[in-house]
Amino acid sequence: MPTGTEIERKFLLDALPPNLAFARRRPLFQGYVALDGDTEVRVRRSPSGATLTIKHGSGEVRVEEQLELDARRADALWELTDGRRVQKVRREMLVDGHTVEVDEYSGALDGLIVAEVEFDDEDEASAFTPPPWFGREVTGQSGYANRSLSVHGLPAQDPA
Amino acid sequence: MPTGTEIERKFLLDALPPNLAFARRRPLFQGYVALDGDTEVRVRRSPSGATLTIKHGSGEVRVEEQLELDARRADALWELTDGRRVQKVRREMLVDGHTVEVDEYSGALDGLIVAEVEFDDEDEASAFTPPPWFGREVTGQSGYANRSLSVHGLPAQDPA
Repeated sequence: MPTGTEIERKFLLDALPPNLAFARRRPLFQGYVALDGDTEVRVRRSPSGATLTIKHGSGEVRVEEQLELDARRADALWELTDGRRVQKVRREMLVDGHTVEVDEYSGALDGLIVAEVEFDDEDEASAFTPPPWFGREVTGQSGYANRSLSVHGLPAQDPA
Repeated sequence: MPTGTEIERKFLLDALPPNLAFARRRPLFQGYVALDGDTEVRVRRSPSGATLTIKHGSGEVRVEEQLELDARRADALWELTDGRRVQKVRREMLVDGHTVEVDEYSGALDGLIVAEVEFDDEDEASAFTPPPWFGREVTGQSGYANRSLSVHGLPAQDPA
């Protein structure tokens, strides 16, 4: 899954919208094997399997590479993510023709619900008007990146 | 290639032993995608292909997992190793029935030659008598780990 530059906007939600109640729930467990500057090495486990993702986030070199993990390797690498894990349930919906991933966190982050909207380009992203049931926008706020949530929990100013 | 606990001893060599002159040369390029505490995420490229290795080195959890990389992924991940690379030529030989990997570094580490001897258990390791053409033992010296060599070069007290 090679990716170009992803353009996303991220918003907090107070609650799941009612029209998501029957959407497919996809439980995701993510843990970080290594965090090194702008590079993260992540294991993601879901009912459909496990992957290792290497992301390098900023600057001129942007990379996101994903490798399949068999069950044995997934177990072994998961051990290395102790203390740096998040668990959430992902649901997808369409808003104004854009795919929105709604992630409902559990465990230590119980109560946190985040909607990520994906766009094809910057123009689309800036033209998007969030629906009234979206809460505060947190696009680009590193405290809401999964890597930060997994290590530090919610940003201090945001009790869940 | 799942590995249990590797037992190795490491020695510096002043020069390649003559009986290695005709051994198969295996050029290896290693670079580090992420270094995080005891965990390292390494890309290794050789004529036979590229691998991603995740190693966690100490404490109760010891892990070493290796994943094959196709050429495109190898290229993309290699970009992330800038400034943290080593290149060397590996040759293998037998000494007293033990496999010895002789790594001759080049580039910034030109002149460094390291022999790693592999053992099945601690008893074998301590019974091993290095041949006279082995130099100083550097087993367990972190300055001679590839991750350190790739970032810092040779340990300060050891001009090549």
